[in-house]
Order: sequence, then C-alpha cells, then structure tokens
Amino acid sequence: MQIAEPLLIAIEELSKLPGIGKKTAQRLALYILKSEQDSVDRLVKSISDLKLKLHFCSRCFNLTEEDLCEICKSVKRDTSKICVVEEASDVIAIEKSNEYFGLYHVLGGVLSPLSGITANDLKIKELLLRFEKENISEVILALNPDTEGETTSLYLARLIKPLNVKVTRIARGIPIGGDLEFADEATIGRAMVNRIDL
Amino acid sequence: MQIAEPLLIAIEELSKLPGIGKKTAQRLALYILKSEQDSVDRLVKSISDLKLKLHFCSRCFNLTEEDLCEICKSVKRDTSKICVVEEASDVIAIEKSNEYFGLYHVLGGVLSPLSGITANDLKIKELLLRFEKENISEVILALNPDTEGETTSLYLARLIKPLNVKVTRIARGIPIGGDLEFADEATIGRAMVNRIDL
Repeated sequence: MQIAEPLLIAIEELSKLPGIGKKTAQRLALYILKSEQDSVDRLVKSISDLKLKLHFCSRCFNLTEEDLCEICKSVKRDTSKICVVEEASDVIAIEKSNEYFGLYHVLGGVLSPLSGITANDLKIKELLLRFEKENISEVILALNPDTEGETTSLYLARLIKPLNVKVTRIARGIPIGGDLEFADEATIGRAMVNRIDL
Repeated sequence: MQIAEPLLIAIEELSKLPGIGKKTAQRLALYILKSEQDSVDRLVKSISDLKLKLHFCSRCFNLTEEDLCEICKSVKRDTSKICVVEEASDVIAIEKSNEYFGLYHVLGGVLSPLSGITANDLKIKELLLRFEKENISEVILALNPDTEGETTSLYLARLIKPLNVKVTRIARGIPIGGDLEFADEATIGRAMVNRIDL
C-alpha cells in the first residue's frame, strides 16, 4: 500500500470522530484535498475555535463564549424553572421544541457506577447551590430514559424534594409520528400507565 | 434558538463535508468540544497538512509529498503498463487489490460536456506525452462504469491505439460475493456477453 503519509494521518485522525469509519474518513480527506484553500482554512479555524472560544456557563454549564450563557442572561426566560439535562446538546434539542422557556442545568453526564462516574463528577453540588441563591419553584428532569438516566433522576429527586421544590420528569410515551406497531413493549407499557384524561 | 456562535459556525463548516448533515455535524462539533486539546490539535494539523504537504506527482498525478509519487519512484513496478484512473482514490482502491503492479495515470476526472469538463481539463495531453518518453506496452483503462467513464474510455482508446499501444479495460461483471438475483440487468447482460472459457 502506497498511501502518502499526510493522507494516512488525516484518515487516521478523521476516523477517530464518532460514526466516521476508515472509508468515510478517506472520502472526507480526499474531498478536503480537492477543496479550495479558503474553505479548508475556514473548516480548520471553526474546529480550533470550538475549544478556544467556548467554555461552560458559570451558572448552568451550558456552552457559551462569555461568563453566562445566552439563556441565563436572557430577561425573557422564566427564572423559576430549571430543566436538568445530561449534555449541552440536550439544551439545543429542547430549545428547538419551542415549548420550554425556563433555565437549564447541564449535569455533564449521568451517574454510572460501572464507568466510575459518581455524584462528584457531575454538576450536582452546583445544582443544589442554585436553590439557595435563586428562587426556583420547579425542577424538570429531562435525562435520557435509560437505566442510568432513570437512576440519576431518582437520585436527584430524593435530594431536591426536601428543599420544597416541585420535581417533575418529562413524559415518556409513543413518539409523535411514531407507529404503535413498531414501538417497543416498554414504551407502550409506560404510555399506558401514564395515560392522561382527554 | 440559542446556540453559541462558534458552535454554529463549526456545524455549518462540518456539514459542508460530503455525507455529513446538520445533525451529524452537531454531533461531531460537540464531540470535538469534549475531546482533549491534544487530540483536537492533531485533527486540525492533519487537515491543514493535507493541502500543505500533498501535491500531484509530476509524472502520474497521483498524490505525493515529493516530486514523484511512491509508485513512480519504486523500482519494483512494471514500468511497461499504465493504469488510467479518474482520481487518486482509485489508485488507493486498486493498490488494495494487490493484483496490479504497473504504473498509474490519474486523469483528474472524466469528460463531461454537461459539467463543462473537456479533454483540456483532464491530464490527457500529459498521458499521451508519456508514450513518447516511457516504454509503455499496455494501457489499462480503469474508469468508472458510468456513461461519462465509458465515453472517456472510448475517447482515450481512439487516441492511444494509433500509437501502437495495447489498450485494455478492466472487466465488468457480477461482483465477487454479489448475488445474481440482486444484480441489475445491465451488469448481468455485460457479464453474459463477456463470459470467459473455463
């Protein structure tokens, strides 16, 4: 095999990205090679800038360029509600739904004893501190509906309830546009138990 | 929507890559954000180096860091054969097969009147010049089996044959591991016409 060294290295590095295999990495590398210098420069700068310019909001740990993120700074948000999520990408997903106008708190993961992630590795202490400083009436837990997400939700609920704050969790059920026939039993079961009056 | 500017820009730039949509670009950007500074630096450098270090071999237009590519420089190759391909990625693909040990010539595309690509945009003149300087006995056309590839093959064959050089084309047929049932009619038809004695 006679692939030039810089191409090999680029394929190697690109294939470390999630969901990018060797073949895709090769296609990307060859595409970049054929691109204008300008657009390669823009791509490279945008990647460097990510780590350089972005850091975590000092209040909610969402991504921001400044001390406080756009959401924490906004005067239009309902500051009595905190939605707890695992990652900054979840904030983006919830914001896209246009149904929530409160604040957020990004945990930075979920409790996972098997991976050695304990309460100290997450922004749980920081969340509890917010109840002292801010006037919060409701916490909405929006962690992923897997075992670790559920465990973390229960753990948080037990910590927060004694503080006289309402704790809710986003609903689980059949996805909009989904098909009953193809939904798994656990989801259908949960949707049945959590049925609501019409 | 309250996505931080640097993240938006990175998503925008990453989604310009082939096969990368907005959602994948967002996943990649957030993954890069969570990566160590070291590995982000390596990724960025490998992308920059592609354009910086690689250019085209002065003889066959394959990718190389030097004047001549590894294949042109090698003393182990059969210098009486030239395999004509569209892109440098095709050289990699053919090399992986371990069945060809001659030289290459990368055209840089195929004739495509609709996209305004004429013979002058391809390295055809350079290919013809090689027959004067080098002692070539066979040209193997390995262009993609689509309309433009076929047209370009016929065009090249007509130019090369008068120079007393044998012109061949790689076989079309049922792919190894493929299934007759799922092969298209054109491929089966071609495989039937080009059947060989056993």
